Amino acid sequence: MDEIEQVIIVRCDLNMGKGKAVAQGCHAAVRAYEMAKQETPRIVSDWKMQGEKKIVLKADLEAIMRIYENARNELPCALIRDAGLTQLEPGTVTALGIGPARRSDIHPLTGSLKLL
Amino acid sequence: MDEIEQVIIVRCDLNMGKGKAVAQGCHAAVRAYEMAKQETPRIVSDWKMQGEKKIVLKADLEAIMRIYENARNELPCALIRDAGLTQLEPGTVTALGIGPARRSDIHPLTGSLKLL
Repeated sequence: MDEIEQVIIVRCDLNMGKGKAVAQGCHAAVRAYEMAKQETPRIVSDWKMQGEKKIVLKADLEAIMRIYENARNELPCALIRDAGLTQLEPGTVTALGIGPARRSDIHPLTGSLKLL
Repeated sequence: MDEIEQVIIVRCDLNMGKGKAVAQGCHAAVRAYEMAKQETPRIVSDWKMQGEKKIVLKADLEAIMRIYENARNELPCALIRDAGLTQLEPGTVTALGIGPARRSDIHPLTGSLKLL
């Protein structure tokens, strides 16, 4: 069985605090999960059987947008923009969630990023 | 319409780094979301229409377990234990996700906690 993972990329050039980073990562995780359930339910089932592996990476805005443009037509992915009610300007990109999907499909896009 | 929110409580007495905290929070968010979709789909729909509000709080182990015991029979909630592959002992409680659920149902349980 292919290795399945969900990748959460948190934007690192905004200096978000820990609570803000968790909230934005959670938005990305839930929305990408919901998309994957609709588009690739078998992969989501396999991911659950494998223990729901999550990888949390960091990237600046340019890298996030480049990955999103490459991933959006191939993989379930959710670009998160902050509502701007608290710390950030409305519409600020904060995170990107990809999958659950096959590691072999995600890794070519995200392999150069570092762990958060 | 009632105000609906998802509350993510991250354990604060483990000194998890930002990436670890995001990963554990994401586990809590996805699992509690999945439970809520099965148990209270109308509330989840309302939550989405309201913008998917998430609140990220912090608590020590004792508070997390007390809240979990009070919440588990009334609300969709997911207690997260780390697999222990990296930084923590296997089975270590790291986070608790509650809802999406009505704020009026969650707040009596979590109202004393501080934001992460």
